[in-house]
Amino acid sequence: MKSFASDNYAGAHPAILEAMVIANAEHTPAYGADPWTERVQGLLRAEFGEDARSYLVFNGTGANVLAIRAACRRASAVICAATAHINVDEGGGPEYVAGVKLRTVDTPDGKLVPQDLDALLVRQGDEHAAQVGLVSISESTELGTLYTPQEIAALAQAAHARDLYLHLDGSRLAHAAAAQDLPLRALTTDAGVDVVSFGGTKIGLVAGEAVVFLRPELADGFAYLRKQSLQLASKGRFLAAQFEALLEGERWRELAGNANAMAARLAAAVGGLPGVTLTQPVQANAIFAILDPAATQALRAEFPFYVWDHATGEVRWMCSWDTTPEDVDAFAAAIRRAVA
Amino acid sequence: MKSFASDNYAGAHPAILEAMVIANAEHTPAYGADPWTERVQGLLRAEFGEDARSYLVFNGTGANVLAIRAACRRASAVICAATAHINVDEGGGPEYVAGVKLRTVDTPDGKLVPQDLDALLVRQGDEHAAQVGLVSISESTELGTLYTPQEIAALAQAAHARDLYLHLDGSRLAHAAAAQDLPLRALTTDAGVDVVSFGGTKIGLVAGEAVVFLRPELADGFAYLRKQSLQLASKGRFLAAQFEALLEGERWRELAGNANAMAARLAAAVGGLPGVTLTQPVQANAIFAILDPAATQALRAEFPFYVWDHATGEVRWMCSWDTTPEDVDAFAAAIRRAVA
Amino acid sequence: MKSFASDNYAGAHPAILEAMVIANAEHTPAYGADPWTERVQGLLRAEFGEDARSYLVFNGTGANVLAIRAACRRASAVICAATAHINVDEGGGPEYVAGVKLRTVDTPDGKLVPQDLDALLVRQGDEHAAQVGLVSISESTELGTLYTPQEIAALAQAAHARDLYLHLDGSRLAHAAAAQDLPLRALTTDAGVDVVSFGGTKIGLVAGEAVVFLRPELADGFAYLRKQSLQLASKGRFLAAQFEALLEGERWRELAGNANAMAARLAAAVGGLPGVTLTQPVQANAIFAILDPAATQALRAEFPFYVWDHATGEVRWMCSWDTTPEDVDAFAAAIRRAVA
Amino acid sequence: MKSFASDNYAGAHPAILEAMVIANAEHTPAYGADPWTERVQGLLRAEFGEDARSYLVFNGTGANVLAIRAACRRASAVICAATAHINVDEGGGPEYVAGVKLRTVDTPDGKLVPQDLDALLVRQGDEHAAQVGLVSISESTELGTLYTPQEIAALAQAAHARDLYLHLDGSRLAHAAAAQDLPLRALTTDAGVDVVSFGGTKIGLVAGEAVVFLRPELADGFAYLRKQSLQLASKGRFLAAQFEALLEGERWRELAGNANAMAARLAAAVGGLPGVTLTQPVQANAIFAILDPAATQALRAEFPFYVWDHATGEVRWMCSWDTTPEDVDAFAAAIRRAVA
Repeated sequence: MKSFASDNYAGAHPAILEAMVIANAEHTPAYGADPWTERVQGLLRAEFGEDARSYLVFNGTGANVLAIRAACRRASAVICAATAHINVDEGGGPEYVAGVKLRTVDTPDGKLVPQDLDALLVRQGDEHAAQVGLVSISESTELGTLYTPQEIAALAQAAHARDLYLHLDGSRLAHAAAAQDLPLRALTTDAGVDVVSFGGTKIGLVAGEAVVFLRPELADGFAYLRKQSLQLASKGRFLAAQFEALLEGERWRELAGNANAMAARLAAAVGGLPGVTLTQPVQANAIFAILDPAATQALRAEFPFYVWDHATGEVRWMCSWDTTPEDVDAFAAAIRRAVA
Repeated sequence: MKSFASDNYAGAHPAILEAMVIANAEHTPAYGADPWTERVQGLLRAEFGEDARSYLVFNGTGANVLAIRAACRRASAVICAATAHINVDEGGGPEYVAGVKLRTVDTPDGKLVPQDLDALLVRQGDEHAAQVGLVSISESTELGTLYTPQEIAALAQAAHARDLYLHLDGSRLAHAAAAQDLPLRALTTDAGVDVVSFGGTKIGLVAGEAVVFLRPELADGFAYLRKQSLQLASKGRFLAAQFEALLEGERWRELAGNANAMAARLAAAVGGLPGVTLTQPVQANAIFAILDPAATQALRAEFPFYVWDHATGEVRWMCSWDTTPEDVDAFAAAIRRAVA
Repeated sequence: MKSFASDNYAGAHPAILEAMVIANAEHTPAYGADPWTERVQGLLRAEFGEDARSYLVFNGTGANVLAIRAACRRASAVICAATAHINVDEGGGPEYVAGVKLRTVDTPDGKLVPQDLDALLVRQGDEHAAQVGLVSISESTELGTLYTPQEIAALAQAAHARDLYLHLDGSRLAHAAAAQDLPLRALTTDAGVDVVSFGGTKIGLVAGEAVVFLRPELADGFAYLRKQSLQLASKGRFLAAQFEALLEGERWRELAGNANAMAARLAAAVGGLPGVTLTQPVQANAIFAILDPAATQALRAEFPFYVWDHATGEVRWMCSWDTTPEDVDAFAAAIRRAVA
Repeated sequence: MKSFASDNYAGAHPAILEAMVIANAEHTPAYGADPWTERVQGLLRAEFGEDARSYLVFNGTGANVLAIRAACRRASAVICAATAHINVDEGGGPEYVAGVKLRTVDTPDGKLVPQDLDALLVRQGDEHAAQVGLVSISESTELGTLYTPQEIAALAQAAHARDLYLHLDGSRLAHAAAAQDLPLRALTTDAGVDVVSFGGTKIGLVAGEAVVFLRPELADGFAYLRKQSLQLASKGRFLAAQFEALLEGERWRELAGNANAMAARLAAAVGGLPGVTLTQPVQANAIFAILDPAATQALRAEFPFYVWDHATGEVRWMCSWDTTPEDVDAFAAAIRRAVA
């Protein structure tokens, strides 16, 4: 089964598992005091800049909620798009574990703009209102769209001017960087982002994300937050070995590039079909389209994917690091049949 | 380097990594809706009884804190030994994430007895006092000692008679079962335990623990707690594949049995030495001993291990699933030299 | 100074303070084990029905957040109007203390309708989404509008049919009951509400609210939640004595009736003026109107009140239990001058 | 009934209620933006020093838990005596609301000494252990004993040298200052305390405590914590008016002095009786004694008081601001009869 449901349906890239097997050779200190973790921290500094302080965690929810906790020690609200993963797909973790309120913005494309901020800040300083301390954006977004470095920099500047931090949920940062042919730091460090959730799972790891602080003072005491919030791995070498394999030679770029290319191929193949209306520009590895529900039903019997909005019939198709042209072509053919 | 510091210094058993590689073949539904997870749930029912409801999580802190959250929905305090991992080694996670107070009992051997309960329950019903809802024990304990099934059953009976649940932190349950030549259920289900943290990491997994509810109503809504508390794995198959390899043919028993045997071998080799005072019976895979600090210092230069109590000079030596007789003999020789 | 800013700018009714003075005569058990509290519980049963279980707390935030905690023990989200006090004026307390996510509905008038529910429930059962357990409405609403008993009953029925509880934030329940010439129970118990925050502060107490459970099982263990959440008064008699004076002879009805009548008088006096556009029907003690900002500025120099929406120029005028016809007439004259 | 059960069984001093009646004259801004609150902040600066920043809250649990939250933004554990109110009488509020772990010290007299700290700090810097950020002491203690200014200064110095803050739970600070004939600041500001819960309820208020920050940076953002944690009073003038009456002319000293004197009178009357063993020095307004359970039972039928320890037969007798010599003499006579 090759699915277009989620990049989490894919397995791990063989090089990732191989790195884990190699890392398995002997005893090594636990809890991240191992040489693999040290090397990964160096590799992440090479990517994100010499001041980057990074911490590996298990999953994206952990990375996001912990980044929020660290950045909201004196705040109680976070601005994000209504479609943000932290708002719709973390099971209320930001509220429960970080204790914050999410202030959401309705957007057409999942992207915040600097103009969104002030409307949500009119009650800063009013003790009855939750106080915003952080803006959180996703790159690429949950709708498969992209921020340019300039757009992120404008948001960072706007956030900082209002005494807010900027968090970037980068569960698909690799896809965004590959799509724009940019280094990771162009979309993060250089753009003024303060803390990044850098995702590994969706780009071919077994499991693993990195919380990368670009404003070092936010990292103070983070090791304690990570442990207390259930995200410290015992055998840290295995998280680190995966990241090492992902970062070496920019393997993430190759994997993300493939996912993006397959999404573009699929969009090209079906975007013009009568009965298929693309609803977002296809900029990374996701395609959003409106189909007739009957076509959707027929298609899902063959290929699993998610209905994004039952009211409108919008569906989501995700391509993965391991999606092949043959997979795409077979799926495109099935779509063609379904909407015929 | 072969260490006696922690069973988390060991890597994963090759069969575990091999199972992950095999599980990597194709796309499969994410978040535990995969066939591996379904099979593991069946294997865990085979171990713990037909009513067992199990959920895989990343690490021991996660398993313990989530078991506490699930069992303390209407309570605010947990009784445990002062030496319990939840009290000393979870970074305050039970307090922060589960919101509970730990009421601790000083014990000589890390083991609670039914007589400990009533002294901590004199204020049940008093709204000024945190209300105990759960008793938590570890098997084997943090001091390497064991509860017999009868001792656990007595605690379960005492807990239930007082309207409390019983949680068993089984990060080393495998060691306890192997040491007593018992099935897992003899120390849990059959003894009246309500919820178990069944540990995989310390017995040879890359990472992975199972929260196993033996009182099914405690599991209601647990999937939401797990997600909200940051412990839902995206690619669930990789947790499950590890557990499958651990449970098949009782591999856990073989691995734990080796760790226990190596601890016994080490105890036999050095227990009688002048300058080495064993402080706990060696019943599982841990050895506690008092050494002269100078001897400890010399020894740690060669073999990493933890000083348990700087005041008394007590040290802890842990054996792992992969400790060999040669490792033990080399370490014993070094101890002999150090205390000579 | 007589203000139209907030019913919290008013003091306490003299009978309330007199009741406190009388209650001050002697020693009595603390923490609500006093005869005043017992009598108030009886009076609240007389109002809300024989099954009502009531607990006094200090303030409205406390009443609301604790009602949510009690009703969301197995849930993680609450549906409410976007304008709800719990959403905009509790400083993030529901998220921080109760750990829940608020799912909001944009409404023209601050009122939910049964049709609002299903759109927010499409992801019930999906472990990635916060799970709704409660619907919360305000009566009267933050916009000064009213639910009829039939409207509340329809919401209760819709909530219960979807396995949700219904909470009523009644910080101005007295005003709603007085305005509709109904007993309190017509808007709560008889309409199927499960838990009420019954407000005293805004209707003439020094401080005090009652959490009244109409579904008794929700009250199980509530005394512990109240204490743990910082809302148990030491000298409980003083909260109770106030409520006794408020409930005796339906004093609340007289006080709320006055506030409502004064709002109607003000609306009648200025509603038709050019330059004053009422934006909500005036059904309780609040008036919402759009004024020219220059008029607002001039007017606020004389009479404090809140600008509700700086973007539109909407303002809020609140009448209190102690507002007099002379106060209203003087304010109306000032408005007339300001908009002339 | 005149009770020796608790200083919360007493009512309010008449001057307190009179101040509330006077404060009731007119409309005034809500939420502490009133002249009474401003005056009280000035009075508290006069007591605690010009840098003191004070915030009024409803009750002692609120004051303590919020002081802990403010001081533990980057820490997760608090050192206190095992007998501390925050440990035994806040219903788990520090753990639930502030998310901290309490690390307790067994003491003979409820008092910490600098030597207690290091044993609890051996794991500072170890990410597996909750990290201590605060030491909390009570003055007077829950056992009716007193710290001298020198003892507090020694603790403050020891705490600061270890990068910890010092909190003083002063629910009975007035009693301690009166007993030692010292200004409040001698036991707090001048001794190096960082934040104080200054109690009003037990010394004659209806309800009210002040959180007083002596290290101003701890107060940053505290107004938001107070609101979010349910402790912001709507009609703030009534809390402030009480404190104004308490502080004017040091009324607290007169009231606390009386409570202390009555405790001394009672101790003198019964301390030497066969059958009455005082277990703590009587330094403030509490007396702890061991009686024969039969004597206790007979006595409690006439005069309510608490059995402190059912195992030893220890009881607690509290004197209040309103206890009279006649009350004491009648109680002493009853004790004499009971133990005869």
